[in-house]
Amino acid sequence: MQKLDVAVLGATGAVGQRFIQLLENHPWFTVTELVGSERSAGRRYGEAVRWVLDGEPPESVVDLPVKPLDAALDSPLVFSALPKDAADPREVELAAAGHIVCTNASVNRMIEDVPLLLPEVNADHVGLIDVQRQKRGWSGALVANSNCTAMPVVMALAPLRRFGIKKLLVVSQQATSGAGYPGVPSLDILDNVVPYVGGEEENKVETETLRMLGNFDGERVQWLDSIASASCTRVAVVDGHLVNVSVELEEKPTLDDIIDAWETFRGPEPVPTLPSAPAQPAQYLTQPDRPQPRRDRNLGGGMTTSIGRLRPCPILGYKFVALSHNTIRGAAGCSILNAELLAVQGYIPDFQPQIAEVAH
Amino acid sequence: MQKLDVAVLGATGAVGQRFIQLLENHPWFTVTELVGSERSAGRRYGEAVRWVLDGEPPESVVDLPVKPLDAALDSPLVFSALPKDAADPREVELAAAGHIVCTNASVNRMIEDVPLLLPEVNADHVGLIDVQRQKRGWSGALVANSNCTAMPVVMALAPLRRFGIKKLLVVSQQATSGAGYPGVPSLDILDNVVPYVGGEEENKVETETLRMLGNFDGERVQWLDSIASASCTRVAVVDGHLVNVSVELEEKPTLDDIIDAWETFRGPEPVPTLPSAPAQPAQYLTQPDRPQPRRDRNLGGGMTTSIGRLRPCPILGYKFVALSHNTIRGAAGCSILNAELLAVQGYIPDFQPQIAEVAH
Amino acid sequence: MQKLDVAVLGATGAVGQRFIQLLENHPWFTVTELVGSERSAGRRYGEAVRWVLDGEPPESVVDLPVKPLDAALDSPLVFSALPKDAADPREVELAAAGHIVCTNASVNRMIEDVPLLLPEVNADHVGLIDVQRQKRGWSGALVANSNCTAMPVVMALAPLRRFGIKKLLVVSQQATSGAGYPGVPSLDILDNVVPYVGGEEENKVETETLRMLGNFDGERVQWLDSIASASCTRVAVVDGHLVNVSVELEEKPTLDDIIDAWETFRGPEPVPTLPSAPAQPAQYLTQPDRPQPRRDRNLGGGMTTSIGRLRPCPILGYKFVALSHNTIRGAAGCSILNAELLAVQGYIPDFQPQIAEVAH
Amino acid sequence: MQKLDVAVLGATGAVGQRFIQLLENHPWFTVTELVGSERSAGRRYGEAVRWVLDGEPPESVVDLPVKPLDAALDSPLVFSALPKDAADPREVELAAAGHIVCTNASVNRMIEDVPLLLPEVNADHVGLIDVQRQKRGWSGALVANSNCTAMPVVMALAPLRRFGIKKLLVVSQQATSGAGYPGVPSLDILDNVVPYVGGEEENKVETETLRMLGNFDGERVQWLDSIASASCTRVAVVDGHLVNVSVELEEKPTLDDIIDAWETFRGPEPVPTLPSAPAQPAQYLTQPDRPQPRRDRNLGGGMTTSIGRLRPCPILGYKFVALSHNTIRGAAGCSILNAELLAVQGYIPDFQPQIAEVAH
Repeated sequence: MQKLDVAVLGATGAVGQRFIQLLENHPWFTVTELVGSERSAGRRYGEAVRWVLDGEPPESVVDLPVKPLDAALDSPLVFSALPKDAADPREVELAAAGHIVCTNASVNRMIEDVPLLLPEVNADHVGLIDVQRQKRGWSGALVANSNCTAMPVVMALAPLRRFGIKKLLVVSQQATSGAGYPGVPSLDILDNVVPYVGGEEENKVETETLRMLGNFDGERVQWLDSIASASCTRVAVVDGHLVNVSVELEEKPTLDDIIDAWETFRGPEPVPTLPSAPAQPAQYLTQPDRPQPRRDRNLGGGMTTSIGRLRPCPILGYKFVALSHNTIRGAAGCSILNAELLAVQGYIPDFQPQIAEVAH
Repeated sequence: MQKLDVAVLGATGAVGQRFIQLLENHPWFTVTELVGSERSAGRRYGEAVRWVLDGEPPESVVDLPVKPLDAALDSPLVFSALPKDAADPREVELAAAGHIVCTNASVNRMIEDVPLLLPEVNADHVGLIDVQRQKRGWSGALVANSNCTAMPVVMALAPLRRFGIKKLLVVSQQATSGAGYPGVPSLDILDNVVPYVGGEEENKVETETLRMLGNFDGERVQWLDSIASASCTRVAVVDGHLVNVSVELEEKPTLDDIIDAWETFRGPEPVPTLPSAPAQPAQYLTQPDRPQPRRDRNLGGGMTTSIGRLRPCPILGYKFVALSHNTIRGAAGCSILNAELLAVQGYIPDFQPQIAEVAH
Repeated sequence: MQKLDVAVLGATGAVGQRFIQLLENHPWFTVTELVGSERSAGRRYGEAVRWVLDGEPPESVVDLPVKPLDAALDSPLVFSALPKDAADPREVELAAAGHIVCTNASVNRMIEDVPLLLPEVNADHVGLIDVQRQKRGWSGALVANSNCTAMPVVMALAPLRRFGIKKLLVVSQQATSGAGYPGVPSLDILDNVVPYVGGEEENKVETETLRMLGNFDGERVQWLDSIASASCTRVAVVDGHLVNVSVELEEKPTLDDIIDAWETFRGPEPVPTLPSAPAQPAQYLTQPDRPQPRRDRNLGGGMTTSIGRLRPCPILGYKFVALSHNTIRGAAGCSILNAELLAVQGYIPDFQPQIAEVAH
Repeated sequence: MQKLDVAVLGATGAVGQRFIQLLENHPWFTVTELVGSERSAGRRYGEAVRWVLDGEPPESVVDLPVKPLDAALDSPLVFSALPKDAADPREVELAAAGHIVCTNASVNRMIEDVPLLLPEVNADHVGLIDVQRQKRGWSGALVANSNCTAMPVVMALAPLRRFGIKKLLVVSQQATSGAGYPGVPSLDILDNVVPYVGGEEENKVETETLRMLGNFDGERVQWLDSIASASCTRVAVVDGHLVNVSVELEEKPTLDDIIDAWETFRGPEPVPTLPSAPAQPAQYLTQPDRPQPRRDRNLGGGMTTSIGRLRPCPILGYKFVALSHNTIRGAAGCSILNAELLAVQGYIPDFQPQIAEVAH
């Protein structure tokens, strides 16, 4: 199979680097174009990037030239890790020009005809692409993944939709990588907690969660009819966002019912067969003090949401803790999984991947 | 004025050290007896202790001998930082023998006739001493301070009692000093969060909070008629417990009403005039990202609870963040303030301190 | 090929866990026996262990019973992560009883006829086994790996032996995992450095380094004729010991000569072909601020020593920084590599592994 | 006594904030002018500053207007925490215009006629002001304090000058506050060490140390005739630079001789009587694992250098560990002490402070 050329926008940033790291050795996609800021454009990637992940940038990209933001791109598939300001017009322009744009940027996420995808949860929202194309006359498409804190909330709640989600209260403890690089100054976080995350994080968690858990009726997404309250804090953790969730359900399942719902949750076909899909999107840990960011963030290659401490909440009925790797499942990894879904569903012109027999 | 001799039980432990540190230069009390574990008994304090606070142990105590747990004590006033097992019979024995025992141990905290004191909040609970003495025939007394995570919750909610507290949901982020020394292994907390605190912490927060906010009717404390839910986590912070609180109130005060209630809260006379009382027991910080453990834990000498981020909670109505120094206001400092209250109210035989004109 | 049964002593400790983690999926060895402390003996491993590494213990060992320290063992090959006191008589007993014992314990390391192996550096020291067997009448053998801080020093200096090593001065910054679990209390290391490592660490670094870099003359190891000075400190890092080294050489190679010596260093045959041998035992990083523990400790699967910042030292001539993963290359991983070397050299009775074509 | 008006340049930065914090309640000086960057100029200090120290900015300065860098100043005494680029022409201009400028900036530190002062060590270097005034025709003066890592090295070595300092080798472990705010990104330092400090830190330590320990011959400073080697690293510590020092001395004092030299060191009159001078500029800690940044940085109000672990160095003869608070003694606090020295020596026109009887 011929691999598909992909471009990474915002390639020198922290999430851009994660895209590049995860796409190395990807079975379907190969990174051939990198787009960076004005400061980086024109230089070799290896020179332009200050690599902040472990080790060094993959050999396969160090000699690629960094292109400017307005460069015409050859790659049919484009992953965007652009900051808000850069993303705003550019992502739409690329989609209009026929590219399939999978973006991690927040700016276009809540536009009504842009699918906010977490494939195991709402793969059918991909149908918004048809709405999008029809309405805007695009040959390409624009698809977003969610805020990295909304993500574990949604993954943990999706298997509970059958019980009726009435209210959800979230207090997050977020890793500093969520703020990019240089991001959070060390003087703000050593021996400290910052009970605030900028960029209207709490609002994003409250709204994106309800939208992602909503139903696509063929024309639009009807948000989940539920009430959400989020409090977001920053802690001295490198990677991994942990959320403390209290939830009120219409039905009164037993704790075992809920654990069973998580453990058996797989998402609709063909999602579980996609290359980046983990064996289990949600996994319940039985130890009394888990999940923990450092010890559990890499479960399932960073694509599994780990859940623990399910117990009664005297106020809302149930409470638990969930954890996702914020720059893998909560950002670049999810965007790649989104692209894989689009690929198998035929949204990428002239590219039809072969799904391997999955041995999960 | 002649200072009162005091003993510190559990003097070599982390909270015992904090008692000693805070009592150095105390205007009324002077440490003359130290009680330690079997391992320490018989040695000079300076040799027996592994000082874990900043700097070195005060000169005034390094040559005191460490006495065994069962030693008869001369000091009328006894502060206890004993671990649970050691506290259990000993504190009661000392109270029965005529000592005023102010304890930080959890084991006797919830006994019906033991006042669980946070002076600004429930100074009248001190009346339980009369119940205690009558019922048990003691000449001494046993008084407890609360769990160090319940403490900031109670201090932040006490000024809101006038609005009717119906429900409260707490997610804590607790410093490792709360677990004593050696306490939390570094391998558990570096680059990590542990979403669990042992010793039934969540239950303590839920129950102690309601008891402390309750009314003393002359015979017993009627718990606050409210519902509490607590989730406790441990973070990489040395000192300072932060709580994210959502609260439902019967009345619907404005945010400004609530801030005003905090800012003007002082507690009943004579509490504000006690030597260890802070100028403000609760202080509202207006910055969007405060309070923070490292930057705000020492406010008011570690005795002020700082509060911030008051905003609407879509589920319970109001939410905010509060912070207290867990080993000062949440442990040793509170116990000392409790003893000061007992002293001015005449519970310590032959000792009547002079209250200085307070310039707060 | 039939895999060889191996036992892990001290299996519930931090290094014992690392042995188990690294031996999962090992091409030659399979863990079939686990030995633990009195507290653990008789329980399933999955119940007895408090797993402190990432994720959970491998499925393949959770149901193994933990045997007591004095249990007779069936496994020809034994890896020991025993604490000093437990190691002392037991390792020798097992070697006398015919087992090949590869130990991480410090207690037997400096015995004259026990090889202190770092295979790329001193594979020929394995000849001490013949001395050992002859002298003691053992059919088994006892082989040690070094202190985890001496290890990166030795790996970085070995390629420079050709230039004549006259003096070496080391200041280490050691991860807390080097102290095991629970090990370093979080109150000692958060926002802190401890300029001291117990267990005579500095002495170990000074002596083990010279012994490992010495020559085996067929009867004993002649220590390297050099002077070593070590200062050891503990820092808030989970894994990865970093050493700042100044070295005086007899010859005056250029910096490029030295970098070339590192980059081309491979160790003698058959070491580079062993399953746990990294492609490069020593790798020079050209960035100005590397190596760094978190970003470089996993290089070569945690078996590569990364080196950087080579520059002139005004006093000793040359200085640089080196880093090794202390519980992989500096402990369990090295012990496994040692065992692989013994296996291919025929020291394990009835076991002759096939060395795969290495594609490094 | 009328207090002297002082200005703080670079007032919104991390060191500028430390100046303001330390000058609150200063017995001689009062902050009346604040100078900031273009971004801050024209705003109230309370609005312009992002206060990164504990608590909040002092009430006395929050309403002061921030002046632009080129503003004419009324204050006779000026403290500068300017970044390099801003300091370059401005500090010299102010000195030429008659101001006494005490600077923490590195840019003018090594100019031959600018005293690099650490009062207990080289108070006589103040004589360079006369050289400076004569040569440049200034009525003011420009005086610098040293690099914050050279500082503890110099303070620890000064008492050993009597033994003849031949060589010194330093490996530092530096707090992140040394890089200002935002400074070190948290992603670079959590669970990590960065073995590199930018701005030619190692060169500064090597050269400034020798200059500060040199002799002023009435015309210039003759550098100490010694060889220095420095390796600088950054660790996850908020405040407090720790240095591991090996030193070669001409004489061979006993360890007790050296400890005695430290413990009795006070510096020349009138330095010990200055308001910011600590009771002991150098203090030897006898515990085996001290000094430690978090526990010892505030010794003597952050003005005492703590020293520990003196022991033989097999290569250079002696080794030890020293620690200073980098933003107090190593920056703002030292600059204030320098100004106090200038004041009592009559370098500040029309200002002659009264030295209190010191009860150290």
